[in-house]
Amino acid sequence: MVLKVYGVVFSPPVLKVIACLKEKELDYEFVSLDFQAGELKKQPFLSLNPFGKMPVIQDGDFTLFESRAITQYIAHTYVSGSQLVPKDHKAMATMSVWMEVEAHEFDAVAYKLNFELIVKPMLGKVTDDGAATKHEEALAKVLDVYEKRLQVSKFLAGDCFTLVDLHHTPLVNYLMASKCKALFEARPHVDAWVRNILTRPAWLKVQELIKQTSIPAS
Amino acid sequence: MVLKVYGVVFSPPVLKVIACLKEKELDYEFVSLDFQAGELKKQPFLSLNPFGKMPVIQDGDFTLFESRAITQYIAHTYVSGSQLVPKDHKAMATMSVWMEVEAHEFDAVAYKLNFELIVKPMLGKVTDDGAATKHEEALAKVLDVYEKRLQVSKFLAGDCFTLVDLHHTPLVNYLMASKCKALFEARPHVDAWVRNILTRPAWLKVQELIKQTSIPAS
Repeated sequence: MVLKVYGVVFSPPVLKVIACLKEKELDYEFVSLDFQAGELKKQPFLSLNPFGKMPVIQDGDFTLFESRAITQYIAHTYVSGSQLVPKDHKAMATMSVWMEVEAHEFDAVAYKLNFELIVKPMLGKVTDDGAATKHEEALAKVLDVYEKRLQVSKFLAGDCFTLVDLHHTPLVNYLMASKCKALFEARPHVDAWVRNILTRPAWLKVQELIKQTSIPAS
Repeated sequence: MVLKVYGVVFSPPVLKVIACLKEKELDYEFVSLDFQAGELKKQPFLSLNPFGKMPVIQDGDFTLFESRAITQYIAHTYVSGSQLVPKDHKAMATMSVWMEVEAHEFDAVAYKLNFELIVKPMLGKVTDDGAATKHEEALAKVLDVYEKRLQVSKFLAGDCFTLVDLHHTPLVNYLMASKCKALFEARPHVDAWVRNILTRPAWLKVQELIKQTSIPAS
């Protein structure tokens, strides 16, 4: 039975899961949700995720939500494609640290910047320049730490690409199409890492999917 | 070599780590930080965690930050004391889901409520009643989902106490000393779960530690 993914293609957390499936070379059925019609906050979706958020996956009769829990499940369950999690115990702990950093330091800021600089203009709304500047300053500080980290290891959790890097890819991809590009490019090791994660064959397939999907009407 | 924990005893993320060590019956050396003097944002602490946040642990020459990454490392590394992570693969995935829920749904709201209702009065500052009410409404919605979940399993990740429940304990403990107590008590399965997690022998030892520690001056 093929794995089902529920969501909308544009959502960064949904893209984390799709990128993970592409890395693992797994087929899946995509169930598109009409979030503008409030489908996420109604039944039957609420019976899949009581918090009314995407993505959700169903692997046979096993239902999971929360993107980072889903990617970990996929990476640990399927042996096909890329090895996205380290086998060594301490390397796994280091990956956990940087997974938390992605969630609480990077994503917390990058999500707001994406909303101000990409989503609002797409929906015909006005960017709050003051808020955007504040978030850019915060992102710069996070990227300063990443620059130092990437001086000692090629990827955030070590010398191999892992789920940590994958979790960053959707928002890095979006922000590279905004003025934030300069923040990534100003830091040479961050810049090399960005080029690396955005040109992975699996991510190029995801980018094709994004291009093929029509932008939702405002 | 005994494990070192850096932080202040009152911090909920630090308490997550201490509770985990008590559950695992592990000795540790506590290195108290003077956060009011800005010790977290200076060297040498920044060389332990470049984001300048507590807790940090050192296990021999292995340094880790981010409380949820630390508790996972401890639970997977040491066989002593309580079994805090499931051995079954799907049960582990379910635990990951609820770990993300704790971080993004529960903690996001409970942290702000704790700040308004407990920390501000302790520091002689005035609670923002409007903000507190808004956060209480958000917490009530999260607890509605927990009530349904706890009708089908004794603990959030299943029938055994895991890291997920442990991660909730510090903020649940604090909020039970505020008017939020009524929100927990109004939901019978949540109420039973709260009594359960707050009376574990390991948590009673943590409560003793909190009582013995003097409240920092404002």
